[in-house]
Amino acid sequence: MRPLLTLLGYSLYKTDYEKALDVAAALEVFHNFTLLHDDIMDNAPLRRGKPTVWKKWGSSTAILSGDAMFIKSYELLSTYEGDLLKKLLPVFNKTALQICEGQQLDMNFETTENVSIADYLHMIKMKTAVLLGAALQMGSLVSGASDEDAKNLYEFGKNTGIAFQLQDDILDVFGETEKVGKQTGGDVIANKKTFLLLKAIELADESTRGKLNDLLSEKNEQKKVEGVKEIYHLLEVKKLAEEEMQKFYSKGLSALEKVNAPAEKKKMLTDFTEQLMQRQS
Amino acid sequence: MRPLLTLLGYSLYKTDYEKALDVAAALEVFHNFTLLHDDIMDNAPLRRGKPTVWKKWGSSTAILSGDAMFIKSYELLSTYEGDLLKKLLPVFNKTALQICEGQQLDMNFETTENVSIADYLHMIKMKTAVLLGAALQMGSLVSGASDEDAKNLYEFGKNTGIAFQLQDDILDVFGETEKVGKQTGGDVIANKKTFLLLKAIELADESTRGKLNDLLSEKNEQKKVEGVKEIYHLLEVKKLAEEEMQKFYSKGLSALEKVNAPAEKKKMLTDFTEQLMQRQS
Repeated sequence: MRPLLTLLGYSLYKTDYEKALDVAAALEVFHNFTLLHDDIMDNAPLRRGKPTVWKKWGSSTAILSGDAMFIKSYELLSTYEGDLLKKLLPVFNKTALQICEGQQLDMNFETTENVSIADYLHMIKMKTAVLLGAALQMGSLVSGASDEDAKNLYEFGKNTGIAFQLQDDILDVFGETEKVGKQTGGDVIANKKTFLLLKAIELADESTRGKLNDLLSEKNEQKKVEGVKEIYHLLEVKKLAEEEMQKFYSKGLSALEKVNAPAEKKKMLTDFTEQLMQRQS
Repeated sequence: MRPLLTLLGYSLYKTDYEKALDVAAALEVFHNFTLLHDDIMDNAPLRRGKPTVWKKWGSSTAILSGDAMFIKSYELLSTYEGDLLKKLLPVFNKTALQICEGQQLDMNFETTENVSIADYLHMIKMKTAVLLGAALQMGSLVSGASDEDAKNLYEFGKNTGIAFQLQDDILDVFGETEKVGKQTGGDVIANKKTFLLLKAIELADESTRGKLNDLLSEKNEQKKVEGVKEIYHLLEVKKLAEEEMQKFYSKGLSALEKVNAPAEKKKMLTDFTEQLMQRQS
């Protein structure tokens, strides 16, 4: 998704997309570096159905390979001419730091009692959404977009990214298992503080909250997922999450409207995001 | 040492050293990032007499803080104008990758049976020496040195760095405890494959090699250090290490001679390195 957004950002203005390939690759290598390190920190045994690097080769190898991949992403950026480099690096550095902060917040939330919806939205913005914004921004900068256009594209990518993450939360609980390609309910089983759970805690009356609390320590996974889903239905949190998702996506679209690029080129971009927004998995 | 070398590299050509402060800081932050991650990989509980970051705050915090420091070092570099950035980044990226490679080699050596002197010299070049070369090179580039001067300064720094590391190996065994500020013999106790040990293994006859092998598994630390030192004396490996050290330092000085900078400025640099070469701790 990130390299594609980079190339789409570039393609709003120019057609020789090859010039954007290095920045697209830089973002993909960078993203995979973060996954390598995140998997160590999260103690995750599997990624894309395969053993994670730390699990297979040990955490030293995973730390060091991650570091090397990170350098590789800067190497890919360093291929651009000086003036462009001077524009790309600050965006990349800032985004990379925010992603570290997002990962730290995500870890903190595991042991934080009172996580608000606002905290959660801030965390997913940092951990996931800013990189989608940066992909569009950097791709457009390579094709010589104005700073204002590049900034609006960043806003479009960032807000769309938040919407995608909210959709992920919804699909994890309400997606069809065959389509999602993995057992649904993983977030529920792990007591992951998603929008749905936080909203349910916020809206539940005393008796429902008690039931919800009991379910969080329920050992029978099927019973737990079914029970939590029932409460989600009762409190209509799915609908609220969809509304929130739509709100962010609309905010993103407003930013995109301000971008001075041909309408048919912008449509290429929205065709891609609409398709993602309607995915069932 | 790294920031100082950066400023000295700059000062060969110009006096307004402030312009080199960001690159000096970048290298220092970068160096400390590598220490943070190395300490996790090496399972090291102490650094500069204090608990290491992973030991005090956990490895997730140490991984992520290291990543953030690494980004910070790129942020510091990104303050320079485009043309200069275009020269600094390739040096920095290449050096950073070599340091990762050096760390991997160092870890590999722990479980490698036959490490040659050449392997060892290659490892310390990658892990330690190239960063000293890069400090001088990058400092000089900021002051507008020619590419040729910058390259010769890199060679001076790199070769001097190898000499410093050989000296470290010698001081760990033969330094005076009060001056070194830590118990000597740490490398011996840890069976660290230093120049001294590798040379001793190379030169020992069958009977001495047998004795040396026995000492490597000796549990009594004092007996072990004394026994190994005795063999080092017998085989005169200290003298050989000093000669090797001098050889690299001389090679560095030859590169420095080719640098087109005022002799009195170059003397500032050699005054500093000579002082380090004669240190007792």
